Amino acid sequence: MFNKRVKIKDLLATEPSGQEVTVMGWVKGFRQNQFIALNDGSTNNNLQVVVELGTQDEAILKRLTTSASVKVTGELVASLGKGQKVEVKAKTLEILGDSDAEAYPIQPKKHSLEFLREKAHLRFRTNTFGSVFRIRHTLAYAIHKFFNDKGFVYLHTPIITASDAEGAGEMFRVTTLPLDNPPRNEDGSVDYREDFFGKSTNLTVSGQLEGELGATAFGEIYTFGPTFRAENSNTARHLAEFWMIEPEMAFCDLEDNMNLAEEFIHYVIKYALEHNREDIEFLAQRLAEEEKSLPQDKRSEMGLMEKLEFVVNNKFERITYTEAIDILLQSPAYKKKKFQYEVKWGVDMQSEHERYLVEKHFKKPVIVTNYPKDIKSFYMRLNDDGKTVAAMDILAPGIGEIVGGSQREERLDKLVERMEQMHVPVEELSWYLDTRRYGTVPHAGFGLGFERLVLFVTGMTNIRDVIAFPRTPKNAEF
Amino acid sequence: MFNKRVKIKDLLATEPSGQEVTVMGWVKGFRQNQFIALNDGSTNNNLQVVVELGTQDEAILKRLTTSASVKVTGELVASLGKGQKVEVKAKTLEILGDSDAEAYPIQPKKHSLEFLREKAHLRFRTNTFGSVFRIRHTLAYAIHKFFNDKGFVYLHTPIITASDAEGAGEMFRVTTLPLDNPPRNEDGSVDYREDFFGKSTNLTVSGQLEGELGATAFGEIYTFGPTFRAENSNTARHLAEFWMIEPEMAFCDLEDNMNLAEEFIHYVIKYALEHNREDIEFLAQRLAEEEKSLPQDKRSEMGLMEKLEFVVNNKFERITYTEAIDILLQSPAYKKKKFQYEVKWGVDMQSEHERYLVEKHFKKPVIVTNYPKDIKSFYMRLNDDGKTVAAMDILAPGIGEIVGGSQREERLDKLVERMEQMHVPVEELSWYLDTRRYGTVPHAGFGLGFERLVLFVTGMTNIRDVIAFPRTPKNAEF
Repeated sequence: MFNKRVKIKDLLATEPSGQEVTVMGWVKGFRQNQFIALNDGSTNNNLQVVVELGTQDEAILKRLTTSASVKVTGELVASLGKGQKVEVKAKTLEILGDSDAEAYPIQPKKHSLEFLREKAHLRFRTNTFGSVFRIRHTLAYAIHKFFNDKGFVYLHTPIITASDAEGAGEMFRVTTLPLDNPPRNEDGSVDYREDFFGKSTNLTVSGQLEGELGATAFGEIYTFGPTFRAENSNTARHLAEFWMIEPEMAFCDLEDNMNLAEEFIHYVIKYALEHNREDIEFLAQRLAEEEKSLPQDKRSEMGLMEKLEFVVNNKFERITYTEAIDILLQSPAYKKKKFQYEVKWGVDMQSEHERYLVEKHFKKPVIVTNYPKDIKSFYMRLNDDGKTVAAMDILAPGIGEIVGGSQREERLDKLVERMEQMHVPVEELSWYLDTRRYGTVPHAGFGLGFERLVLFVTGMTNIRDVIAFPRTPKNAEF
Repeated sequence: MFNKRVKIKDLLATEPSGQEVTVMGWVKGFRQNQFIALNDGSTNNNLQVVVELGTQDEAILKRLTTSASVKVTGELVASLGKGQKVEVKAKTLEILGDSDAEAYPIQPKKHSLEFLREKAHLRFRTNTFGSVFRIRHTLAYAIHKFFNDKGFVYLHTPIITASDAEGAGEMFRVTTLPLDNPPRNEDGSVDYREDFFGKSTNLTVSGQLEGELGATAFGEIYTFGPTFRAENSNTARHLAEFWMIEPEMAFCDLEDNMNLAEEFIHYVIKYALEHNREDIEFLAQRLAEEEKSLPQDKRSEMGLMEKLEFVVNNKFERITYTEAIDILLQSPAYKKKKFQYEVKWGVDMQSEHERYLVEKHFKKPVIVTNYPKDIKSFYMRLNDDGKTVAAMDILAPGIGEIVGGSQREERLDKLVERMEQMHVPVEELSWYLDTRRYGTVPHAGFGLGFERLVLFVTGMTNIRDVIAFPRTPKNAEF
């Protein structure tokens, strides 16, 4: 019945020759009782539908309010108006669904992002969020295509897990026990043997350890799934539920890992620029408008398009952690005591330090390698200096850490030694150690926070605006 | 360092001309102190590496045990042996990681699937699971490609949710409250205002309702993410954590929905047949072997390849629920009282009935439409008869229901009426109803259980063998 509809994006790219077409969409505007701006979500660009005076019932025309849905059949013709090549001369016009213009929560005016966050079920219909989520889609697709084309196996690592091996942060408990009266052991503690999985379980913080199991069988795998942090952080950069991509490669060292990560970021951004150029241009313009109200020194040095083109066309800078600390210690910012947090070898760099390196010093993405072992995870490969591990973080302008990765410790004895030092339960992770017992191989991998990538490519500044239904402290609406 | 490695899959398709190549992988076998069967997970086919007598240290050769990892450089030459076109004449041979052949849990013999399930961290290294998970990857990729090529937007619907709108089954609670001593209200009940999200939250059972929000903005969306059921079902067909694909289309009725679902299934199976033919052939042979030990009447009528080709090349049968019940009532099975469960208009068909229709009567996939409203969900569109809803289930041979979908009730008054009848909280779902208030459109969608699709294409019979780390009652290993 409906399958003859043509999407507006396709229609706008069609050569007009008076052919009859059927379009459906939502009314974005209606002026002079004659021109409907129609949108179906395939693009931000509206289709102009022309209603010739006197050809349609006045009662119908009155119902062409913002967000009313309509079905139009008519002729596709060249447009005489500005701003569009084609338009549709309406032959039949049918209201599919009315919309009370007074009550409709999203009025035809500029709303704040904060307001729209509360209307997350309708904000998709705005130009800004239309563009953001089409770009998000394209980035997700580009990620799958990148890895598929290279022969990586997409591995679904578990969401519910019994281990907190990564120690990556506070976790959400998953349970079917009655909270008001859980079964108890004799000593009064909760008896998790009665829980669904027969033990205490949580939502995963990372699929990496399971990813390593896959890599040491298939050679190269990647994950792309949701991960969770129960951190009580109410910031523009934190979500309790977010999506991560974690490739893991056997026969791979730190340098291969950096090369892959850089190629990957170049690829997906380039893919978005090629396949979503209009949407990115729209957001670039939006960002430029937004920044006009900021003082000069708070504005971005580059526009969004310029920034993305720059990233795609330039190699990332590569420095060691030790070099990074030296640069910071030599910096005017340090000398003028502008850093709030301490700078010295051994500390975990803070956001202000990372931003200095990326935005002031190098003015491009930077890969920092070989961090002190004490500030990194147990599974990272110990370097020959005995002090640093083969880690790498990619820092991006305006975002900070966008990728975190490492070569993994493939030597069983060294790995167990680190686990013991860091109080990671060796026995519980015996399955993980089996990869080192039976044909261990040098291997490496990294994690990319998907929403951080979407922030970077869309130029949005709050992470809650690049995921459909954000989960944050005290907020799980929709 | 490692990036010059060539994958064995690519090497086996290369024209040999004595060129020097580097390969890495795990030893599958070593015979006559001369021939290494090497595998790197890119294919089930091993590369033969020939060690010329006397060219390598005997101590090294002793370490070429099952699953030891090695790096080989040598010349790619035409093979004189049977079963392979090319082989590598080893020049250098380096052990990357030893494997104690006695201790290695997966011995070079046939293991039962049950045994391998307990070794899920190593089963990827077997031929059977290598094939299964490469096919799973290909199906996942084909799904993304299918929808992307059609202009659908991939929407990440939330995993943690505060609503049980679907009423689709028992749910897992997500909480950060201390189970041994949760905060309480004055009446003694648990005070969920203190929980992370400020209310009681669960793991999602479906992204459909949020998907509808997306479809009524972007036109067409799909989800592909994990969903959860806390059902205590220890069967070969149930998982507590599984992956679902849920496309949702605006301007779409039941017929369009069926057409899309059928085209979709044809597409992804065809894609797997084209891109993973070797792996499917391997599993087809495996299945044929397995079935040899079964009595004649328990064996499949078609081999796996034959079945898949048949499905791809034939239209699905389409019948109404009412017709399905009539067929069952007329069947010899019914007349001979072979059905365990009741057959009459109004009952939910049981697996035995579905299998009869698919496997005995039509001998092909069947789409059953227009089910009685009382056995279906509140959001399905009421048909003009007032008794049935515009639902559709696709039933597949050997699997049963593989797709469940419907046209959605787009009429606000009818939807609210159904919700009230079925005790679905209208106020709580006000956001969902907004799609019907502001420019409602005819729309439809369906859900496909990803693991059921993988079962169908791989010919495996237990759902725990087609997901990497199955979550089932009392089991959340790895």
